[in-house]
Amino acid sequence: MVNEQNNDFVVTPWEVHGKIDYNRLMEKFGTSPITEDLLERIRRHAGDLHFMLRRGIFFTHRDMDWILDEFEKGNKFHLYTGRGPSDHTHLGHLVPWVFTKWLQDKFDAKLIFQLTDDEKFLFKEELELSDTYSYALDNALDVIALGFDPNKTEIYIDTDNAKTFYKLALPIAKKITFSTVKASFGFDNSMNIGSIFYTSIQAVPAILESVKQGKNIPCLIPHAIDQDPHFRVARDVLPKLGFYKPGNIQCQFIPGLSGPESKMSASDPTETIFVTDTPKSVKNKIIKYAFSGGQATIKEHRELGGNPDIDVSFQWLKLLFEPDDQKLKKIEEDYRTGDLLTGDLKNILIEKANEFLIHHRKEREKAKDKLDRFLVKD
Amino acid sequence: MVNEQNNDFVVTPWEVHGKIDYNRLMEKFGTSPITEDLLERIRRHAGDLHFMLRRGIFFTHRDMDWILDEFEKGNKFHLYTGRGPSDHTHLGHLVPWVFTKWLQDKFDAKLIFQLTDDEKFLFKEELELSDTYSYALDNALDVIALGFDPNKTEIYIDTDNAKTFYKLALPIAKKITFSTVKASFGFDNSMNIGSIFYTSIQAVPAILESVKQGKNIPCLIPHAIDQDPHFRVARDVLPKLGFYKPGNIQCQFIPGLSGPESKMSASDPTETIFVTDTPKSVKNKIIKYAFSGGQATIKEHRELGGNPDIDVSFQWLKLLFEPDDQKLKKIEEDYRTGDLLTGDLKNILIEKANEFLIHHRKEREKAKDKLDRFLVKD
Repeated sequence: MVNEQNNDFVVTPWEVHGKIDYNRLMEKFGTSPITEDLLERIRRHAGDLHFMLRRGIFFTHRDMDWILDEFEKGNKFHLYTGRGPSDHTHLGHLVPWVFTKWLQDKFDAKLIFQLTDDEKFLFKEELELSDTYSYALDNALDVIALGFDPNKTEIYIDTDNAKTFYKLALPIAKKITFSTVKASFGFDNSMNIGSIFYTSIQAVPAILESVKQGKNIPCLIPHAIDQDPHFRVARDVLPKLGFYKPGNIQCQFIPGLSGPESKMSASDPTETIFVTDTPKSVKNKIIKYAFSGGQATIKEHRELGGNPDIDVSFQWLKLLFEPDDQKLKKIEEDYRTGDLLTGDLKNILIEKANEFLIHHRKEREKAKDKLDRFLVKD
Repeated sequence: MVNEQNNDFVVTPWEVHGKIDYNRLMEKFGTSPITEDLLERIRRHAGDLHFMLRRGIFFTHRDMDWILDEFEKGNKFHLYTGRGPSDHTHLGHLVPWVFTKWLQDKFDAKLIFQLTDDEKFLFKEELELSDTYSYALDNALDVIALGFDPNKTEIYIDTDNAKTFYKLALPIAKKITFSTVKASFGFDNSMNIGSIFYTSIQAVPAILESVKQGKNIPCLIPHAIDQDPHFRVARDVLPKLGFYKPGNIQCQFIPGLSGPESKMSASDPTETIFVTDTPKSVKNKIIKYAFSGGQATIKEHRELGGNPDIDVSFQWLKLLFEPDDQKLKKIEEDYRTGDLLTGDLKNILIEKANEFLIHHRKEREKAKDKLDRFLVKD
């Protein structure tokens, strides 16, 4: 079972809440920790280590060692990641994408990016297909804005590419029973038949490059850990069809504004900063909602210090906005000692986030003219 | 429940066996008998009645009266039928198609013909998608050979048209739960997730014309009664999406060679005459396998007469090969009295069937050049 209904946290591709114990999650999902040895191997090939690896934000994997074995034999992998377009892109989505961009650059890897407008329509009662399709086009701009190489990146929207995707999903679907999706996703008989079928569509990008090239190409999927059940099923099925199991490298969630136990989610705008939020809105949200690890009064804070481990502003700097370890360490120490007040910390985040987002939106504007280069049409 | 597991016959879209009680089937499926009044209405518009209506081969319907109400108001219906391409076309398939052609001619109706290569792949363990796709192209020739109007007929192959079909199937699938398909088709948890999703794809042609024209167009589906569960589900769901319920007009099965309780099925070639069988093969199969309603010896037969009701050769003449009621009646009477021996009856069928099939194959050859006019490409 994937969702820990009887415990204090729940993680499925459609629901995440509670205080997540990432060690227990690894155990339950059957993924492996990213060891020092593995980090060393990655560093050897990449030249350095991305801060998300150094800081354990990407913390677990499946077959990353095998992916590197193949890479060392000259059998290069391609990357696959994606997004369920239910709203504008928010900061939580950027974490795996920023890391994926780094992998593309360092390993000269082709990326297949899947926008699952079908999924979000099927799983969200209130959304129409026209909504999720619009968000797919909107979200594609954010992917492009991050600077992926247009010569090595293909963006697919499921409904636009259904001719390719449905056909390739069929042999996968034929090997997956309702019992399997029931166990893997916690589905019951009230699920709609589109949502039951859907996981086979999400498996397609893992074989697309192999199908196109007519030979097996290793596939590495960087993603947030909640998507694991999909790829667990895919890893079971794809070898039966003659394909490699895809490898995975998985990250933690970015917390919502309200606290370290929340997950940033578009369904609650007070939890979330969207890439489209104005600088003023970013500032207001952080000041008003960002959960603080500080003390109740300035006096107490100066005396006792703050707790960066539960402070959302600090966590966001760590997860996304302060790539420099020295600077981050200084902020952390100053906050712990009480030299840095919550307000100061929030101001650092506001500045960093807005700097990032202002640049992002500029690139996002430019991306509108590049859309056709990235989007694959069946 | 659709399949009458506890009774003496089973009818689902994937399994038909036992002695079928068509009255009980109507009751179970909730369809209406085709009354004299309804026949009279059809005759009024068509000018005559097709022998399959006169003889009760098409024996039941849903909303055929409403279809005619709308027709009389000037709201013309389109036709939709199809085929699961698991093998070459056999005689059993021709019955609804021949009738559909008549409806097209008499009511000047557009026809959407669906070739469900995805379905046959998903439901037949031993078939690959390349097999069912080849059969789809092969079967399309038989449809075209029957003389459908190229200006009023569109043939769709599900995987070729997945861009249209998958997208339109999604809103339908969103409204159908696993509980519904479980009850409607007798599925259990061991069914593959493609087969669970599939019924939403079979519903698409019922709305395709309405979607294209941007207004509701009545749809009439002539089909063998075993497909009823699909359309029962579709009739439930489509109004929730703002479409009309499709109407149905449904026929009996054509029996296999071995007897009136069998159904012609490609999976048993000794039961089946394919349109591609040579005249010699047709002759041999009928002589060797066609179940006889005659007596054990010629002497007995001359004295007691034969029983055309259980004689497969007579049934095939009635169902497909002898449209002339007078001639059929003479054959029936002569067989009952014993004037006509089983061998004579078989010879009549052999001649009629081969005459039909030789013509069919000529048209089938010509159809190869017409394929592009009929096949819709997404």
